[in-house]
Amino acid sequence: MKYDVVVIGSGIGGYPAAIYLADRGYRVAVVEKHFIGGECTNYGCVPSKAFYQFAESVRNIEKVKGNVFYNWVELVEWVKNIVKESREGLEYLLENRGIEIYNGLGRLVDKNKVLVEKEGDVIELETDKIILALGTVPLDIPIARFDGDKIISNREVFYLKEKPGSVLIVGGGVIGVELANIYSSLGVDVTIVELLEHILPFTDKDIAIALKQYLVQRKVRIFEKTTVSKIDKYSDRCLVELTNGERIEVDKVIVAIGRKPDTQNIGLENIGVEIDKKGFIKVNEDLETSVKNIYASGDVIGGPLLAHKALLESISIAKRIAREESFRVDYRLVPITIFTGLEIASIGYSEKDLQSINIKYVKYKIPLYYLSSVKIKGFKNAFIKILMDENSERIYGIHIVSPNASEVVSSYMPLIIGKLGFREARSIPYPHLTVSESLRDISEYIIGEPVHLFLKK
Amino acid sequence: MKYDVVVIGSGIGGYPAAIYLADRGYRVAVVEKHFIGGECTNYGCVPSKAFYQFAESVRNIEKVKGNVFYNWVELVEWVKNIVKESREGLEYLLENRGIEIYNGLGRLVDKNKVLVEKEGDVIELETDKIILALGTVPLDIPIARFDGDKIISNREVFYLKEKPGSVLIVGGGVIGVELANIYSSLGVDVTIVELLEHILPFTDKDIAIALKQYLVQRKVRIFEKTTVSKIDKYSDRCLVELTNGERIEVDKVIVAIGRKPDTQNIGLENIGVEIDKKGFIKVNEDLETSVKNIYASGDVIGGPLLAHKALLESISIAKRIAREESFRVDYRLVPITIFTGLEIASIGYSEKDLQSINIKYVKYKIPLYYLSSVKIKGFKNAFIKILMDENSERIYGIHIVSPNASEVVSSYMPLIIGKLGFREARSIPYPHLTVSESLRDISEYIIGEPVHLFLKK
Repeated sequence: MKYDVVVIGSGIGGYPAAIYLADRGYRVAVVEKHFIGGECTNYGCVPSKAFYQFAESVRNIEKVKGNVFYNWVELVEWVKNIVKESREGLEYLLENRGIEIYNGLGRLVDKNKVLVEKEGDVIELETDKIILALGTVPLDIPIARFDGDKIISNREVFYLKEKPGSVLIVGGGVIGVELANIYSSLGVDVTIVELLEHILPFTDKDIAIALKQYLVQRKVRIFEKTTVSKIDKYSDRCLVELTNGERIEVDKVIVAIGRKPDTQNIGLENIGVEIDKKGFIKVNEDLETSVKNIYASGDVIGGPLLAHKALLESISIAKRIAREESFRVDYRLVPITIFTGLEIASIGYSEKDLQSINIKYVKYKIPLYYLSSVKIKGFKNAFIKILMDENSERIYGIHIVSPNASEVVSSYMPLIIGKLGFREARSIPYPHLTVSESLRDISEYIIGEPVHLFLKK
Repeated sequence: MKYDVVVIGSGIGGYPAAIYLADRGYRVAVVEKHFIGGECTNYGCVPSKAFYQFAESVRNIEKVKGNVFYNWVELVEWVKNIVKESREGLEYLLENRGIEIYNGLGRLVDKNKVLVEKEGDVIELETDKIILALGTVPLDIPIARFDGDKIISNREVFYLKEKPGSVLIVGGGVIGVELANIYSSLGVDVTIVELLEHILPFTDKDIAIALKQYLVQRKVRIFEKTTVSKIDKYSDRCLVELTNGERIEVDKVIVAIGRKPDTQNIGLENIGVEIDKKGFIKVNEDLETSVKNIYASGDVIGGPLLAHKALLESISIAKRIAREESFRVDYRLVPITIFTGLEIASIGYSEKDLQSINIKYVKYKIPLYYLSSVKIKGFKNAFIKILMDENSERIYGIHIVSPNASEVVSSYMPLIIGKLGFREARSIPYPHLTVSESLRDISEYIIGEPVHLFLKK
């Protein structure tokens, strides 16, 4: 079998390049050892957001003292169906472009040969170019090794056969807080332990505190500067000891401390593809690996492990392979979005980042509870923080802590890339009773003509 | 009492100008005959969106075969509290600026004098300038006169003491379909009658059809080219005859056929402020009425009866009064947003508009069910329609029919005002599992490099 391009990994770092190139007449194969769509579609964004919508709805109803009754199995079935539909949507896209899909583990033999192994059968694919979109797998720790039952990861968490009564989440990063929000809204007893100084350690403390306050209101227990020191597993529960001396009994321990590149058994070493200390594949600015004609994209090259980053990388590689004018992903602009009711969406630098590189900045921190759309959600500590240059309109960072922040942030993106100024934004008729209309009010405030915001600077 | 500016009406067409001018040292009074905040805060956007959030949550849970139990009185109390908080927020803004609020009916005696009447007392306000932000009131019809009980408007509909079992909504415009969505999600039996050819008669038929399909799925009965021919009121219900021969029994008849300017008993005629045939106050491009130093803004001057339009008008007047460089509202850009689960947000021209003024256009109509964020909502007929010039990147209209369209449309606004092109938008990392990321995929599609969209042009 002879191809122009073989893409290993059908996740969002892989399939966009495959489609783009197939549309331009290249013979393309995709190798996938598990499900089409990879982590995001099958174990990440998609099932997570389906659960999230349900959990938020429950919370909205309980806030008005209503009661919700549902069947856990029915809920999981519904989530599975959404995932299945999303996966089939991708399969349709690939098949309609005439892309060949090989199910099995892809192994690199030399820089023009990929072996696909499945149940003893081996198929040999010859190719000019290879894109490695291998993704990542959940990381565990010696004291809490995944067992698929009591100690689990995002791989199991959306497909549990019974609703757990209580969970301990190890790691207060994005996945940890998203799961805490979902589970607590569904009435599960949730504890988070975070090793570092505060949850969401990569971001500013005020953002972490706002989310912490919100989660604590939802009865999530949060222990910071703490981790697990011992786990005793029993048939029906785990007894967990924490480094702060607490002992708690839970049904499940969810380890969400991070992820590692899924590069095992691929044969990178056979052809000399270099990896860094943490195992991520090294690439240059054009996403070429150390071996000519072998590219890598998505989670496996590190950086923010986000679908929208992987997607753009994948297309930028495809354009380069097709000898078209390409683009480079501006990593500073990749929004981090956290789906937690009181959502968080961040673009650009945090205060912490700016301080560490010694850049002076002006900070505008604007509470959002003045918006009726935020009052309806009940999020008293919603805010937007904008970090700007002292002497120009240059924006270093925008941090939105509000309901719907994940959608709202896209309205703010033209500001940070310099396509829109505050003076223009103040007279754009952003629609009323949304969170996006904050953009108008904040623009008024920043240019010194506030109407809706009555704040001390 | 001597003022620089008296604003009659504390709704969103009034208070922004008051605040803006007070901040610049003008002595400002606001006259309000009813509640601070006007129609939007008290009887429109705010209570409507609170109900909407609850109704959507119920629907999300029932979709997964869950059951919701709630207390209607508790729900209405919660809505009332949101409204109260929003109103108090505005009062705080006004009071903190030192603006004097007069509760009572404002009457124009001459062009420098406003009398405020309340319970027999009369206060005389002298002023240099007046802003008329009088708003509108619901319109009824001879066959269905408002009685505050059986035949009602948006004034009563959010504060009913009991949940109605069934309602007939006269008028399939924005208010009509929003109420139909809310009530049907709450299990009320809903019928809409629309006199014209289709619901949402101001927009394109394909948009109306998408919403109709959705509402019909939600068991709303819709009769188009139909109106009410007779209503018999009984103590506990109404018997309604329609022009198509149908006879139905309902608990409440909601008349939502339109609104009329609230200019009665103001004394416009005393000082010669001209009104048009429908009673809307005539203004020039700078929002000056026919009388010097008297301005008008918001619903009372007609055009789209939308809060974000009124708000910008109000500020543009204030800037003119303050002799600052002002702006004019670009009415073509004012988004119409309809909060109906499958939401609608439209900016610019419809196909109908373009055909009526003989402008040729290219149409891109893109189904959105490919997005997992839309699959989770279950809206199979979600789409975006973009109408463009045949020979340039100029966009005539953007019509979004999708969940969260009201937030998403703000991301699309820079495109229609020419601040952002499709070639740029395709490489902006709009975050994944949102509806806003459609902007990237649609940009790819329009520039001829589709990855996620596999469509025949």
